[in-house]
Amino acid sequence: MGGGGGRGGKDWGGVMTASNRIGGRGPGWWLPAICLVLQIILIILFGVLVQYNHDTDAKLWHKGNQSDYENDFYYRYPSFQDVHVMIFVGFGFLMTFLQRYGFSSVGFNFLIAAFSLQWATLMQGFFHGFHGGKIHIGVESMINADFCTGAVLISFGAVLGKTSPVQLLVMAMFEVTLFSINEYILLSLLGARDAGGSMTIHTFGAYFGLVVTRVLYRPNLDKSQKRNSSVYHSDLFAMIGTLFLWMFWPSFNSAVTAHGDDQHRTAMNTYYSLASCTLATFGMSALTAHDGKLDMVHIQNAALAGGVAIGTAGEMMLTPFGSMIVGFLAGIISVLGFKYLSPFLESKLKIQDTCGVHNLHGMPGILGAIVGAVTAAAATTEIYGGGMKDVFPDVASQARDSFKQGGLQAISLVVTLGMALGGGLIVGFILKLPIYGSPSDTICYEDSIYWEVETHDDQLTTVRAEEVEKLNS
Amino acid sequence: MGGGGGRGGKDWGGVMTASNRIGGRGPGWWLPAICLVLQIILIILFGVLVQYNHDTDAKLWHKGNQSDYENDFYYRYPSFQDVHVMIFVGFGFLMTFLQRYGFSSVGFNFLIAAFSLQWATLMQGFFHGFHGGKIHIGVESMINADFCTGAVLISFGAVLGKTSPVQLLVMAMFEVTLFSINEYILLSLLGARDAGGSMTIHTFGAYFGLVVTRVLYRPNLDKSQKRNSSVYHSDLFAMIGTLFLWMFWPSFNSAVTAHGDDQHRTAMNTYYSLASCTLATFGMSALTAHDGKLDMVHIQNAALAGGVAIGTAGEMMLTPFGSMIVGFLAGIISVLGFKYLSPFLESKLKIQDTCGVHNLHGMPGILGAIVGAVTAAAATTEIYGGGMKDVFPDVASQARDSFKQGGLQAISLVVTLGMALGGGLIVGFILKLPIYGSPSDTICYEDSIYWEVETHDDQLTTVRAEEVEKLNS
Amino acid sequence: MGGGGGRGGKDWGGVMTASNRIGGRGPGWWLPAICLVLQIILIILFGVLVQYNHDTDAKLWHKGNQSDYENDFYYRYPSFQDVHVMIFVGFGFLMTFLQRYGFSSVGFNFLIAAFSLQWATLMQGFFHGFHGGKIHIGVESMINADFCTGAVLISFGAVLGKTSPVQLLVMAMFEVTLFSINEYILLSLLGARDAGGSMTIHTFGAYFGLVVTRVLYRPNLDKSQKRNSSVYHSDLFAMIGTLFLWMFWPSFNSAVTAHGDDQHRTAMNTYYSLASCTLATFGMSALTAHDGKLDMVHIQNAALAGGVAIGTAGEMMLTPFGSMIVGFLAGIISVLGFKYLSPFLESKLKIQDTCGVHNLHGMPGILGAIVGAVTAAAATTEIYGGGMKDVFPDVASQARDSFKQGGLQAISLVVTLGMALGGGLIVGFILKLPIYGSPSDTICYEDSIYWEVETHDDQLTTVRAEEVEKLNS
Repeated sequence: MGGGGGRGGKDWGGVMTASNRIGGRGPGWWLPAICLVLQIILIILFGVLVQYNHDTDAKLWHKGNQSDYENDFYYRYPSFQDVHVMIFVGFGFLMTFLQRYGFSSVGFNFLIAAFSLQWATLMQGFFHGFHGGKIHIGVESMINADFCTGAVLISFGAVLGKTSPVQLLVMAMFEVTLFSINEYILLSLLGARDAGGSMTIHTFGAYFGLVVTRVLYRPNLDKSQKRNSSVYHSDLFAMIGTLFLWMFWPSFNSAVTAHGDDQHRTAMNTYYSLASCTLATFGMSALTAHDGKLDMVHIQNAALAGGVAIGTAGEMMLTPFGSMIVGFLAGIISVLGFKYLSPFLESKLKIQDTCGVHNLHGMPGILGAIVGAVTAAAATTEIYGGGMKDVFPDVASQARDSFKQGGLQAISLVVTLGMALGGGLIVGFILKLPIYGSPSDTICYEDSIYWEVETHDDQLTTVRAEEVEKLNS
Repeated sequence: MGGGGGRGGKDWGGVMTASNRIGGRGPGWWLPAICLVLQIILIILFGVLVQYNHDTDAKLWHKGNQSDYENDFYYRYPSFQDVHVMIFVGFGFLMTFLQRYGFSSVGFNFLIAAFSLQWATLMQGFFHGFHGGKIHIGVESMINADFCTGAVLISFGAVLGKTSPVQLLVMAMFEVTLFSINEYILLSLLGARDAGGSMTIHTFGAYFGLVVTRVLYRPNLDKSQKRNSSVYHSDLFAMIGTLFLWMFWPSFNSAVTAHGDDQHRTAMNTYYSLASCTLATFGMSALTAHDGKLDMVHIQNAALAGGVAIGTAGEMMLTPFGSMIVGFLAGIISVLGFKYLSPFLESKLKIQDTCGVHNLHGMPGILGAIVGAVTAAAATTEIYGGGMKDVFPDVASQARDSFKQGGLQAISLVVTLGMALGGGLIVGFILKLPIYGSPSDTICYEDSIYWEVETHDDQLTTVRAEEVEKLNS
Repeated sequence: MGGGGGRGGKDWGGVMTASNRIGGRGPGWWLPAICLVLQIILIILFGVLVQYNHDTDAKLWHKGNQSDYENDFYYRYPSFQDVHVMIFVGFGFLMTFLQRYGFSSVGFNFLIAAFSLQWATLMQGFFHGFHGGKIHIGVESMINADFCTGAVLISFGAVLGKTSPVQLLVMAMFEVTLFSINEYILLSLLGARDAGGSMTIHTFGAYFGLVVTRVLYRPNLDKSQKRNSSVYHSDLFAMIGTLFLWMFWPSFNSAVTAHGDDQHRTAMNTYYSLASCTLATFGMSALTAHDGKLDMVHIQNAALAGGVAIGTAGEMMLTPFGSMIVGFLAGIISVLGFKYLSPFLESKLKIQDTCGVHNLHGMPGILGAIVGAVTAAAATTEIYGGGMKDVFPDVASQARDSFKQGGLQAISLVVTLGMALGGGLIVGFILKLPIYGSPSDTICYEDSIYWEVETHDDQLTTVRAEEVEKLNS
């Protein structure tokens, strides 16, 4: 027989691909070249620099007298897997809301995440895990690599639909590096606490992405406006992303906190913050939206702001009561941002923020940093007892007092904003170079310029057949 | 440019929303008011009443000599996360089968779950975890709050498509309260065992919801009949819900059983019960359905009945053999219920059970209660050995014998049915008050009365363009 | 009122089902009979043969002095749940890419998995866990049963769309048996290591399925060619399967390795292999596809080959560097297979491989076996230290040297290929018997011959209404 079938031998010959209609050209040689070359470089660097750590090395682990059950795997891996789902399914599907950009949303998310987690292993290892010229890795470094990847995906949300995969890989390369430097300054130099990354991940990723999208401003983007919206089922796909992010956020914030009560408390604080945020989001959405109706944009995004805003203070003795207040405020701020601030940012500041990351990650991230600074400043031995050494080691060791810890937390926010804005500016101009096959203003938010997309949908053929029948009768 | 784009600055101006066509009015001020007010009340009550428990409090935990690894977090949290996925993705997507009610299914599920888990923390804490005027919380209370939420979502399934979100929140408020009272009577006063909630969750949630939907009977619901069915892709979305419920049910049933062999055995019994139930479901579906074909309704629902029916006895020494018999019977009963009993309930008893919760939760829940009573009555020290104290503490302490334990299990079922039927009756009449913006009979099962829904689907525009082209040629 | 509504009382009367149009006949009595009879046989066999093992039995567990926390449940169950998701959601949704076969993909996957895991418990227990005439089961046997199920689902991928559910159950029955024999030869007789199943699961499942589909060759399959392709949203559903497989593969490969460093290391090696494979896949897809565009077929499948190819060597001291090389090669091989080899296999060797399992499981499985053999042969006490006894117990006990271990690994691959090809041939001919209601060549890849499928889609009715309006104006 002629054409092969299915996945095994797909014959595209007889299929008129959508791109032919639109007349787009594929990304050509840039994409395969950068993917393969970057991966080969990563492999070489891993060969030279990376080693198993104590808990993953057969010889080292068995030298000690510890029980197998004490391996860090059992205390971190379930959290890691939840974080992993958030990165790949959570972020990936959250962005499938666009009607004709689902392949790119979930596919480029997949690509840049797979790249970033490898590159982040090296960059973070260079700053945090360098021992005798080697980077030692295990489940905790895997979680941190996924965290860094999260920041890149947040920035991806700001430029979604307007950038080629080559641009995204270049952005990821620079952003991972800057992320690691900022993280090093905050956690190692300033001794700040930020287990869930309100500052390091969310604030950094959001403002970095917002500056990039500002530099890449497209004055004629309205030519693609008709595709910059959702359809019914694309909004349901996006809800898959929303819910996996929402459900696993307690694992995200608690994944790298200290063992024992710290992980436990962080997960619980996040749980209540998110629940509170969800009611605030529904309330505010109905309050502000047209005719008292709910807006899927708010539910998909603002309901998650409670996880962002509890990222820094989640491990602290914030109490469920405090967590719920934080979540409540985050939901309100986020919906108001979508409703009033984003249109302003777009029309006045020329910031085209496709996913509204400013509302989900930017403002709630800043809120989280402030809450963290205040909560840290209020920490007392009365409240934390012997647990002080896990949450605020520098305060427990009397290297500083709580008030100074709070001050350094606040300084960390300023540093993060500076790094994000400055870094985004530079990287934005690098991405503006006309060499990456960026889509023209008329074909943004469109899969068929990057993907083989068949047009003869079953719905269409069925409809056409039935219509013709009807017309002939 | 004028209108903002994407998530950032969505401009609804140029889009004709579906509701305009139908002429529905949004829910107005009720929904935002109730969401925000309820959440503020919850926050205040948490502030007054709730405290970290021993395993989540920094000071208390570090007072003891225990290892961080003994924290209950590590023995409950993975199960908690699985339960959490069942509540939000499982129940949420299971109900997306309706063709134009996906936003509401997954969205209202989200809303009432986020409310219920907070309210349940207070209600269950009041009955079970009250110490010195304070409710102490940790991962186990989080699981129990999610469990209680499950009962509310089961009731939601019965009234799906016919109630406003305000009604649902009011229902949740009352149902959580009644659930907690019933749970207190069963577990604390009667000393019944019901780890997976065959009685407390499934039987209670189902019959409560069925009475509510009976009271809210709509004689002219056939005017919305055309939307009370699935489309191809909505059935695939529903399978996401089904599978996550099915896969994680072993975690659900074992989430709060005693550590060690109990959790292990409960998970395994559930695993085999569900597998057996699935084959029974496929067999019965093909046996009863038109022309030997399979019916998605059965696969999506009846295949889960094995998890419901093993909820009480799962932790007991039922053996995999016994578990498989239970699952087999549950699958058969459930399919027969969908096929023969539900039409009868609707036409004769005026019970409009949208999701068929009577078949998935009601009858299998009763089966599970009976199996639990019989298995408890048959328990001997010969079989349970030193494990008796974990499964039947009152029998182990010789406060009662096995036969009496079985009897109390049976009484628990009767109490549960009484509470569900009585409570549902009262709450049904409360919900019948004409103040909640309930949809009229002609626009049930329709998202566009609660949600901003765009009509210019890509399918439609593409089809229209292609059709016009075709017609002109 | 007349027709019942919703799930509760679905009235098919007024709905013209798709099958009526096509004129297909349902599978009749075969399917219900085989489902119910097989399940009853399974229940009887479980009653006779199966017992709780030490960690699931109330009496046995409480006899010892061990802490509840040492129960194997806590060290295997999170991995088990991840594997479980891969089997039911991962494989199930991966195959939903076909435009009109989503119900069957996810539904038959569900059916044959639920059967296979029970049958595998017995078969594997017979060979591995037989103690005093009884099969002892617990979480590790549950993982192994899911693993065996995975092999059956791989074979299902090869014949997808061309076989009736009865054929699939018969295939599963034989394949599980042969799988267990092969696994026994490899792991028990030859002492091979294959924790992630590159040989036992992937190579076996793929080549078994390929031979079966060869025997079932349909010369006129091009008559169904129009349905053997994806539509836009079906490709997004398939990405759900891809991502859950990708994310949880580290758990799959590490699920049954030794506690401690072994599980930890295996998960990490798999993580990096997959990341590397993903960049290779994107690169090769863009390199080989039409006009530099990406092909969803590659992304959905080849990006997973890194998990397959690291299945044997993942637990060894392969290093992340080695793992990334393996993943890189697997991605390249897999994309090239989809592009060039599959059309050749189909046109020349008459192998109609619907999902391209040769490219995802076959070749990467062989690669994994070879990598495993080489890595085993290179093992030294210098590298493994005291961990040698966990990874290569026979080498640690000096029953053989590393080189011999490597040789036996290579022999295991040959045995596996022999068992798969021979077994597939016999089972293929059994499945060719004209008694199972196999679909005719014109209605392959079509749900409506097995499922009640409604045709009055909302899209269709809406479109029709709008079109008619348009035409009338």
